[in-house]
Amino acid sequence: MWGGGDAPIVTLTTDFGTADGYAGAMKGVLSALAPRARILDLSHELPAHDVTAGAWLLLRAVPFFPPGTVHLAVVDPGVGSRRRGLVLEIGGHYCVGPDNGIFSLLPARLGGPLRAVVLDRARIPALPSTSAVFEGRDVFAPAAAVVVNDLAVGEVDLARLGEPIEDFTRLPWTEPRPRGEDWLGEVVRVDRFGNAITNLTPAHGAGPLAAGGRRVSRGRAYADAPPGAAIALEGSAGFLEIAVNQGSAARELGLEVGSPVELLNEGSGS
Amino acid sequence: MWGGGDAPIVTLTTDFGTADGYAGAMKGVLSALAPRARILDLSHELPAHDVTAGAWLLLRAVPFFPPGTVHLAVVDPGVGSRRRGLVLEIGGHYCVGPDNGIFSLLPARLGGPLRAVVLDRARIPALPSTSAVFEGRDVFAPAAAVVVNDLAVGEVDLARLGEPIEDFTRLPWTEPRPRGEDWLGEVVRVDRFGNAITNLTPAHGAGPLAAGGRRVSRGRAYADAPPGAAIALEGSAGFLEIAVNQGSAARELGLEVGSPVELLNEGSGS
Amino acid sequence: MWGGGDAPIVTLTTDFGTADGYAGAMKGVLSALAPRARILDLSHELPAHDVTAGAWLLLRAVPFFPPGTVHLAVVDPGVGSRRRGLVLEIGGHYCVGPDNGIFSLLPARLGGPLRAVVLDRARIPALPSTSAVFEGRDVFAPAAAVVVNDLAVGEVDLARLGEPIEDFTRLPWTEPRPRGEDWLGEVVRVDRFGNAITNLTPAHGAGPLAAGGRRVSRGRAYADAPPGAAIALEGSAGFLEIAVNQGSAARELGLEVGSPVELLNEGSGS
Repeated sequence: MWGGGDAPIVTLTTDFGTADGYAGAMKGVLSALAPRARILDLSHELPAHDVTAGAWLLLRAVPFFPPGTVHLAVVDPGVGSRRRGLVLEIGGHYCVGPDNGIFSLLPARLGGPLRAVVLDRARIPALPSTSAVFEGRDVFAPAAAVVVNDLAVGEVDLARLGEPIEDFTRLPWTEPRPRGEDWLGEVVRVDRFGNAITNLTPAHGAGPLAAGGRRVSRGRAYADAPPGAAIALEGSAGFLEIAVNQGSAARELGLEVGSPVELLNEGSGS
Repeated sequence: MWGGGDAPIVTLTTDFGTADGYAGAMKGVLSALAPRARILDLSHELPAHDVTAGAWLLLRAVPFFPPGTVHLAVVDPGVGSRRRGLVLEIGGHYCVGPDNGIFSLLPARLGGPLRAVVLDRARIPALPSTSAVFEGRDVFAPAAAVVVNDLAVGEVDLARLGEPIEDFTRLPWTEPRPRGEDWLGEVVRVDRFGNAITNLTPAHGAGPLAAGGRRVSRGRAYADAPPGAAIALEGSAGFLEIAVNQGSAARELGLEVGSPVELLNEGSGS
Repeated sequence: MWGGGDAPIVTLTTDFGTADGYAGAMKGVLSALAPRARILDLSHELPAHDVTAGAWLLLRAVPFFPPGTVHLAVVDPGVGSRRRGLVLEIGGHYCVGPDNGIFSLLPARLGGPLRAVVLDRARIPALPSTSAVFEGRDVFAPAAAVVVNDLAVGEVDLARLGEPIEDFTRLPWTEPRPRGEDWLGEVVRVDRFGNAITNLTPAHGAGPLAAGGRRVSRGRAYADAPPGAAIALEGSAGFLEIAVNQGSAARELGLEVGSPVELLNEGSGS
């Protein structure tokens, strides 16, 4: 699959920050066990223990990488518990990390065949020194290195890493509910810019949104609203979001994760 | 230009942070469209929408990269508006991003011939899914990938990406004004360490600076002042700056962008 | 040492942040002078001027990289002073940076032969423009590039970079003191998750810890305590630490660097 000297890419996603050296240790393990891996950071700045934030990051980024990329993601409030480790193949993309839902938004987006195994610690390369408290370094990074090395020679044998399973942990996901022609949704993410992303999509209708006691007209791009004004539009992951041009919709409309958002099709003339 | 297996470098500069996955999606696009690109982060932590901060970052970093590097920079309060996209070649360095001034401090520093084209969205590779709100991923990253791929085989044909233009958006820049032998300048940047960088240079004279009601002697390095004391010196980008050894000049002298700074040549014996 | 097309890795560790472009300029210098180097960020988010934080980051990350990696680390409150620059070889790992103690926790951990030279600025490649205030860019990055290039062809000649020295600056390190069968230690680091890492190790005994007026039982992993409860365990760098499962031990027990921690072996039945 990889010709012409291109080495497999492995991306890293954690809530470790960088200053403590935990993320650095994972890069060390990857460098030692998969010397040809090309390591790319997605983020180490996820909010601590926020699995949902990790799942959204992966939803936004993974689909744009080529198949044959390895995504190593560790946000792991349950480290050391009986929480399982996973290796997934989803439409040619490989994911390695804890079985806590962090990869669970990907299958619907990536499509393609899905294979999953539960990581068997006995089957992955042992490090000279390990710890009960850092599976990112001691279990998941070595497992990702195995996948990278397999990719470099052409074929990944997931069964080398653990037993196949049929399903894995999914994050809760609330679908919008209909009310007449309208839809009752909610805010599912707020991004760095204060954009409030909802679980509504253009398929639910072309009407305006109602949120935070305000009615927000639909547009195409942030700049379709004057600076400081709110606008509802289709965000880059395909969901409707409420934005304030050059401002924060979350702050100005008082929106946070879980805030109700209604899509008003009735009488909207659309 | 690139022999012996070295792949072109593409640097990334944004105000996206990393936790939302927007920067990650751009890396995915680059990895998919320019598989041999070597991706290096400059920063994703620019203050949101701060084009001037981006221009200063590029001014400090780009001149030290070798010619034949591609610099992809997206700080874009005007995304989706009629703001144009740019591809620039400046003395062998390539820049891709919005036409909002983010690259405008580079030509004077880099020297060399300057070529510019306005990005024509119809001429760049289309992604499977795109959006009206994320040109960094959908327009600028694919354009950067085209430049990387051209560099990998030896020659960049900017005309493939858009129509040539003669000029592009420049950030405002205030030159110091003379008063007798003195110069009236101002603070143009404050860095992470609280150093207050001015628009004055050693060419304006060797006298002390006056700022924040204080007279600050000139020195060569931070450590020429005792810990906690202020000193004026030539910073790493060639401008005079006011620093406090192991402290914050901005905080201790009450300086911010726009604060007046006077270079006192009269009677300074220099 | 590096066959099959693998280029040497150089890691970067600074307290520069990324937004100012200082870290970016260092990457530029490395890219220009050592075009085949594979650059990996460890962190640019160390607290400003915190040499001890840098030493801990390196202690946690460097041992996991393969020998033949170059570690460029610049946290440098003394830039421009008469503080010396160092190049170290420790068990096949190479370190380049200021002689202020940032590398001083590594020799005991890495083992192997230690060679050290004082960087001689006259022996490293000169940049077109340099500065008295940015040795990370102007001195340490070029020196790291020399080491990378030497590694790429097989052998590093440290003497090309400076005169050998016998010792270098060490950070202060307090060993725990015995009191009967107990040990009096202290908190030496607090990490992003609020875990309070001590200078005690499992070799000091298996009893509980006393800190912040609380007695904390020993366990193996964070999840051995209920959410919100404190636990003492061996951390990933081999030191005993006090953690709160899914919480912050530092905040909840009022611990900070220097807080006393006692390991209670007497009467603990262990």
